[in-house]
Amino acid sequence: MGLSRMILFSKMHGLGNDYVVIDESTQECIPEDKKPEFVAEVCRRGFSVGADGVIFVQPPIHDGDIRFRIFNSDGSEAEMCGNGIRCFSKFVYENAVVRKDRLNVETLAGMKTVELEVEDERVVSARVDMGKATFKTDEIPMDVGECEFIDRFLPVEGEDIKLTALSVGNPHVVIFVDDASAVDLQRLGPAIENHPLFPERINVHFVEIVSPSEIVMVTWERGAGPTMACGTGATASVIAGVKLEKLDDSVLVHLPGGELKIDVYQEGPDLGAYMEGDAVMVFDGILIRDP
Amino acid sequence: MGLSRMILFSKMHGLGNDYVVIDESTQECIPEDKKPEFVAEVCRRGFSVGADGVIFVQPPIHDGDIRFRIFNSDGSEAEMCGNGIRCFSKFVYENAVVRKDRLNVETLAGMKTVELEVEDERVVSARVDMGKATFKTDEIPMDVGECEFIDRFLPVEGEDIKLTALSVGNPHVVIFVDDASAVDLQRLGPAIENHPLFPERINVHFVEIVSPSEIVMVTWERGAGPTMACGTGATASVIAGVKLEKLDDSVLVHLPGGELKIDVYQEGPDLGAYMEGDAVMVFDGILIRDP
Repeated sequence: MGLSRMILFSKMHGLGNDYVVIDESTQECIPEDKKPEFVAEVCRRGFSVGADGVIFVQPPIHDGDIRFRIFNSDGSEAEMCGNGIRCFSKFVYENAVVRKDRLNVETLAGMKTVELEVEDERVVSARVDMGKATFKTDEIPMDVGECEFIDRFLPVEGEDIKLTALSVGNPHVVIFVDDASAVDLQRLGPAIENHPLFPERINVHFVEIVSPSEIVMVTWERGAGPTMACGTGATASVIAGVKLEKLDDSVLVHLPGGELKIDVYQEGPDLGAYMEGDAVMVFDGILIRDP
Repeated sequence: MGLSRMILFSKMHGLGNDYVVIDESTQECIPEDKKPEFVAEVCRRGFSVGADGVIFVQPPIHDGDIRFRIFNSDGSEAEMCGNGIRCFSKFVYENAVVRKDRLNVETLAGMKTVELEVEDERVVSARVDMGKATFKTDEIPMDVGECEFIDRFLPVEGEDIKLTALSVGNPHVVIFVDDASAVDLQRLGPAIENHPLFPERINVHFVEIVSPSEIVMVTWERGAGPTMACGTGATASVIAGVKLEKLDDSVLVHLPGGELKIDVYQEGPDLGAYMEGDAVMVFDGILIRDP
């Protein structure tokens, strides 16, 4: 029997999206070329730890404080993830990897600033600049003869649905409804996701306005169906609501997995947003692996 | 901030059915009246550890070596579980709770003897006596005017399906097919599960005979749909095959989640079986809970 190797990890979640977090800030734990295979194995529910993805905490390679790497459960690497970066930031602070309440985090989508709210040495919430949105149909992308598609009717399944299309790095449509709980997500979600006007398909959000500062949303996520918490979708929904003057610039969003606060800012002609929410430390673990 | 409490656990799986295992052999970790709530919380995937159930290792209260308690993910307590008791037995041996390769395990379904195969201090497989089967329709139960229903046609969804009904503590029907991979499980599974002849519904297994000592099976589990590994179903399938003289008394069973070996024995007029398979230790963990 060869020498077994121990891998320390933490399991965390943000609004029910769960991640294995591995600290590689002082030494590489999983060699780069083995990461995809390792991640796919570790994320497999039932047979291993089980998670939506694996986050690696790495030393900075540019002028940031720390570097964020995130892999999906299939082993592919993602550029950025709102729920993931909140977990990452809480881990980095509470484990004293970097003891700053304003972290400059290097990601594959560029530098992200994360502001931490700390109480009793614990991170109780994290706020991330999600960047600017675009309503330009060629950037979303949307195959339509207009340069924007805001509060316009789209024929879907025999009815006309009024929607707003935008991108916050990935594509979204936002549909304001009277009652989010009454939406027939299983029928409308895939019909809009796969509508021929969206060549790269699209994330679909149904948003009920409780007040100008509070919404309830349900999501049909591109390639995934109904999900508990789409951080970019919450961002897109509030930006769409501000654009249409239905919402204030600071909005509490109720998602099936929990709450997020979205603060919209104006930068020149564009709208951008901060996303704020909590992250939960579930447990620490030790994986035993044969070499 | 109050004092937090640490709960040590192991995460294990048998054929992809995964369990949180907690050692209460020397002291109670979760009070009895809090167990259902604790289990439901810990099993919730995404938000906590995530598992199919929680196993507690407890001191014997009768003349057994050790006591097995198993709770389903909804917090209800189960009497017995083949995949669970293999994980339990490996845990008990490797953590030196009881260092015997033949364990008398107290369960809510009575005393079970588990034989362990040990190599280099590691348990590589565990064999459990699954007890005797009954083909009596009133014991299964099955509402039909015969006392047994063996290799008989049942009309399902407009076709006649030849099946054998039996109970190994829970109810099963076994259907021998030419190609298990070609079975339309989504259509036939629920139609048979909910057939009016089965007042308590039934587990449905489609079994392809590779040779008299090897089968491939797919399962539609009562209340759960397609599952990766139904230990009692594998037992029932081989006993049905032996009864019909289609199979030898020692059979390797390929399930979606892995392999089991079933050895059938005769006891008076009845058939019983041992189930043998492996159990996998995935990781050790520390849950931090506020008091």
